Amino acid sequence: MNKEIYKVVFVRHGESKWNQLNLFTGWADVDLSEKGIQEANNCGNIIKKNGFDFDLCYTSYLKRAIRTLNSILSVIDSEWIPVIKTWRLNERHYGALQGLNKKETSLKYGEKQVEIWRRSYSVIPPKLEENDPRSPKHDKKYLNLSNEELPLSESLEDTEKRVIPFWNNEIKQKIQEGKRVLIVAHGNSLRSLIKFLNNLNSEEIFKINIPTGKPFVYEFDKNFNVINKYFL
Amino acid sequence: MNKEIYKVVFVRHGESKWNQLNLFTGWADVDLSEKGIQEANNCGNIIKKNGFDFDLCYTSYLKRAIRTLNSILSVIDSEWIPVIKTWRLNERHYGALQGLNKKETSLKYGEKQVEIWRRSYSVIPPKLEENDPRSPKHDKKYLNLSNEELPLSESLEDTEKRVIPFWNNEIKQKIQEGKRVLIVAHGNSLRSLIKFLNNLNSEEIFKINIPTGKPFVYEFDKNFNVINKYFL
Repeated sequence: MNKEIYKVVFVRHGESKWNQLNLFTGWADVDLSEKGIQEANNCGNIIKKNGFDFDLCYTSYLKRAIRTLNSILSVIDSEWIPVIKTWRLNERHYGALQGLNKKETSLKYGEKQVEIWRRSYSVIPPKLEENDPRSPKHDKKYLNLSNEELPLSESLEDTEKRVIPFWNNEIKQKIQEGKRVLIVAHGNSLRSLIKFLNNLNSEEIFKINIPTGKPFVYEFDKNFNVINKYFL
Repeated sequence: MNKEIYKVVFVRHGESKWNQLNLFTGWADVDLSEKGIQEANNCGNIIKKNGFDFDLCYTSYLKRAIRTLNSILSVIDSEWIPVIKTWRLNERHYGALQGLNKKETSLKYGEKQVEIWRRSYSVIPPKLEENDPRSPKHDKKYLNLSNEELPLSESLEDTEKRVIPFWNNEIKQKIQEGKRVLIVAHGNSLRSLIKFLNNLNSEEIFKINIPTGKPFVYEFDKNFNVINKYFL
């Protein structure tokens, strides 16, 4: 490998049980579906066939991403590699929409409104009430987070605000130290990264749909300009 | 919980495929058997029933321990908890005996000799040759370790020498900071810890056999004296 090139592998978790039921998921901690488990294993096999290996892995606090990563590491026989889990790579928080059926929500609020919530960069879906049992305040995972950090709903812009500092201050540094990095995250936390890495505007980013369980590679020069990107 | 008491949960990994075949395992990175997978799940259920929860987990570089831990975390719905993996919690290295059948080894070298290798505190089993493919030098897991750290065979005393500093310098510190800790390791890395924690001599420790997949708790006072120990 050319030492002047950094390669990073990204994966969106396999299909979850709520992807399958067409529910808004966000921070709801839903397991992989049977299909999602298979996608995760296939993903591991693709990574293995292409001869990729890693020194460090990142994932979110959500089990659909963690289990996808565990499956990949099992297939490539690298379960011993350090894994850093962070809420900053969580899916975009979908507020009061979490757990609602996407079709029913369209019937209730109108397709146009739902499309705005889903595809507008800075519009925030309806917030959770603070005392809603779905609020992250009631989840032990997030006990160490401040009130300011804990979202009750997020636009993609909000997601970007927590993802990009983690990229810049943590992941990028490790890549520059020569660590070969694998990141397993979510549709919208990955979108935030892709927007940032490719310098896309807030419309272009919504044209990008990231498939579940398909590993993709970004190659950077030493100044972190993207010089190549491709699916494996 | 009384704040002056620290509770730590220990688990020996579930049965491995080589436990089942009666082979010396050591650092050979063998998977869990079907029975071992069940033991790991049962272990998670026992921990859950007893209401234990954790802030931090430790395990070895070996997949039979990592997978046992993953199963436990899945059952107690805590996969997001940080996990620190270290070669220092690996099983005792069994040198040239690794991969040999225990019964055949007894026939070849005599039962008495094998008993000495297995039960003597400071006698080292035959070493691996440096160029033996089983040597940890040829395993990517251990590339960052120095020659001095990499064993070609270990007595229990040698195992103790790498486990106890990790306990003192890392695990104990985190417990003192108030972290609730789970440790999933191996028959002999756990023996080293038990010997140290209970101040046992080199004969007493071999009377202790740690069953696979059965969680046990140590309670310490603030000076790390053992005040209670029990299986869950």
